[in-house]
Amino acid sequence: MSSGVLSREFEGYIGQSSMIRAMFETGIKLKKEHGEDKVCDFSLGNPDLPPPREVKQAMLELAEEADKPFAFGYMPNAGFPWLLEMMADEYSREQGTKISAGDILLTGGAAGAINCLFRAVLERGDEVIGMRPYFVDYINYAANFGGVFKPVDTSADFSLNLAAIEAAITAQTRVVLINSPHNPTGQIYSKEELEGLVAILRKKSAEHGRPIFLASDEPYRFLTFDGAVVPAVLPMYEYAIVLGSFAKNMSLPGERLGYLIASPNMPDKASFMGGVVMASRILGFLNAPVVGQKILKHALGKGVDLEIYARRRQMLGQILSDAGYEFTMPRGAFYFFPKAPGGDDLAFNQILAKQLILGVPGTGFGMPGYFRLAFCVDEKVIARSADGFKRAIDSVK
Amino acid sequence: MSSGVLSREFEGYIGQSSMIRAMFETGIKLKKEHGEDKVCDFSLGNPDLPPPREVKQAMLELAEEADKPFAFGYMPNAGFPWLLEMMADEYSREQGTKISAGDILLTGGAAGAINCLFRAVLERGDEVIGMRPYFVDYINYAANFGGVFKPVDTSADFSLNLAAIEAAITAQTRVVLINSPHNPTGQIYSKEELEGLVAILRKKSAEHGRPIFLASDEPYRFLTFDGAVVPAVLPMYEYAIVLGSFAKNMSLPGERLGYLIASPNMPDKASFMGGVVMASRILGFLNAPVVGQKILKHALGKGVDLEIYARRRQMLGQILSDAGYEFTMPRGAFYFFPKAPGGDDLAFNQILAKQLILGVPGTGFGMPGYFRLAFCVDEKVIARSADGFKRAIDSVK
Repeated sequence: MSSGVLSREFEGYIGQSSMIRAMFETGIKLKKEHGEDKVCDFSLGNPDLPPPREVKQAMLELAEEADKPFAFGYMPNAGFPWLLEMMADEYSREQGTKISAGDILLTGGAAGAINCLFRAVLERGDEVIGMRPYFVDYINYAANFGGVFKPVDTSADFSLNLAAIEAAITAQTRVVLINSPHNPTGQIYSKEELEGLVAILRKKSAEHGRPIFLASDEPYRFLTFDGAVVPAVLPMYEYAIVLGSFAKNMSLPGERLGYLIASPNMPDKASFMGGVVMASRILGFLNAPVVGQKILKHALGKGVDLEIYARRRQMLGQILSDAGYEFTMPRGAFYFFPKAPGGDDLAFNQILAKQLILGVPGTGFGMPGYFRLAFCVDEKVIARSADGFKRAIDSVK
Repeated sequence: MSSGVLSREFEGYIGQSSMIRAMFETGIKLKKEHGEDKVCDFSLGNPDLPPPREVKQAMLELAEEADKPFAFGYMPNAGFPWLLEMMADEYSREQGTKISAGDILLTGGAAGAINCLFRAVLERGDEVIGMRPYFVDYINYAANFGGVFKPVDTSADFSLNLAAIEAAITAQTRVVLINSPHNPTGQIYSKEELEGLVAILRKKSAEHGRPIFLASDEPYRFLTFDGAVVPAVLPMYEYAIVLGSFAKNMSLPGERLGYLIASPNMPDKASFMGGVVMASRILGFLNAPVVGQKILKHALGKGVDLEIYARRRQMLGQILSDAGYEFTMPRGAFYFFPKAPGGDDLAFNQILAKQLILGVPGTGFGMPGYFRLAFCVDEKVIARSADGFKRAIDSVK
């Protein structure tokens, strides 16, 4: 019987908490039983590289001013004006189009940015289309404001299936949400795919008489391999929105620092930006954390050592390949998404856990039959995992 | 005509942005025209005292570890376990009842905490009862999740009007939200008032077959005058929730650090806490900012110099009294809420602005006929305001 302490919706949620977090808990248990150094934990995208050295410099400067009035004070809701100017320069270069300070909102992480967007644009019952496999909290971000997340299948190589997207769009479709480089598959959408998508969105927006936004969640933009390029969406489409973060490129995930950038060509952009800034205020973010913002004064445009991630990718790719796993080399981000040997990803994840290897079943991304491995872990851990990966796949042959 | 870039609800919001912020903008303009040192700005609750010295110590330690892996990494969604333990000790003392680490959620500010609570407990159409005058974003926090904020009049001295609250409660009432010490009136609710309120909530919860929460928003608990005491609600009522912040007592508003504490006696408390922690995750807060949390390692329980606020209260009280304003001395928090001479608070605020004095009209708190003055400003500013306050009131006599 209900104790009545939660809404009916939330009563349904409790118990079915995020699979990634569940693996996190299993990991803690295994580490306690077998020792930290025996477990190979590929379950969590918690970047393990040290932040760029400019972060230390920024913290020293902050310590210097920490006993001054307003050192940690409020600032305009969108962020420090000097920082928005710096970001306008930085992202004008990145996106190859002129972005102004007023096109940017600093938020509490990219997750916060998505929530601000959804709060400002969704009507109750509106649909958000995303690509399968997907980050499971996309469902919840939409549900927060009465929206419905509608996953669409991708092609065999996880590239966009434009025909499937077009077929999925209805009069209720308000946002198409993409993530590139993609968690968990490492796929990057090409310029041609994105131009095809934009053509569909333009057509469908006109057909249904309301703009359909293209929201591009890009926390892994900085991390691509073998010269892969992430195309810029803002110059392509007047209703494009970029959602980004400093969690992964600077190893600052706990400080909750992200941003939203609107296409400089958006009609009535002032209303849109006013709306998302207000959403940030009334959702309680108010402003992105002040320390994170002051860190960016020194560290904007800096990043962790990408060579380290590239080496790990090679190393884990070799191990998986030698053991006989079926997978595509990720083109970006720090995840592998191999097929689960035997086909049952939940069962295979248990088999891996017996080898003290932690991954996340594809079911946690709406895609059974696969599993995710995050390679933001030390090379020693990757090296140590080789035998376990071999034994695990052999046991289901 | 609608450009279609916002939801219909948000289209309605744009243009009618927060009055406090509007005054903030007027202030910037006046300062530009007349010089920073000529304007007496009492419009914003942005604490101007330096943070306690332990904050500097914490920042130095953080600078030391800033180049280490995971220095700014994720932690469990509710917060660092060691910090929750520290807070459990601290708030057990404050609330006079045994609080456990598991009863606490660290959030992005008290505003974030209220949003997490509302997300987890409100059904669409549920009512949140609050006291007039009220912080205007309470309306929006409820509306975020389909809730309706329902203000109830208070007594002439801004104490609780229990009969009015009881009459306002319906089957849709889910939360009664109080704020004590109160912004903008400085009132503190007594133990007797709160016990009377709890008796009503118990009766009405039973009558309607669903718990009605008592949510106590307490960012100013640390700041009381003339020995006034803020009663602890958690031991009084099993459905009491405390929402707090480190913005005001430590002058850290920009870092967005707050918390939610559930009554240790709540039935099915584990579900409730699971719900609010999940709400924090899916609203995009994920966790309270890591730097803020690490600051608390050194600074929890420390605060700014309260004597300074006490002196300013005396000083501004004397000035208002000498000039002939009608007001009650605030018992807590850092605001005066005098009656607007002439009765029209919007007009009188303009008259004050002509004297280069900035306040906020009571209309911005749902209470025309009054105006708010925040005294988190330097004594020199208060001294300089004396003539202007006199001229302003004389001009409407």
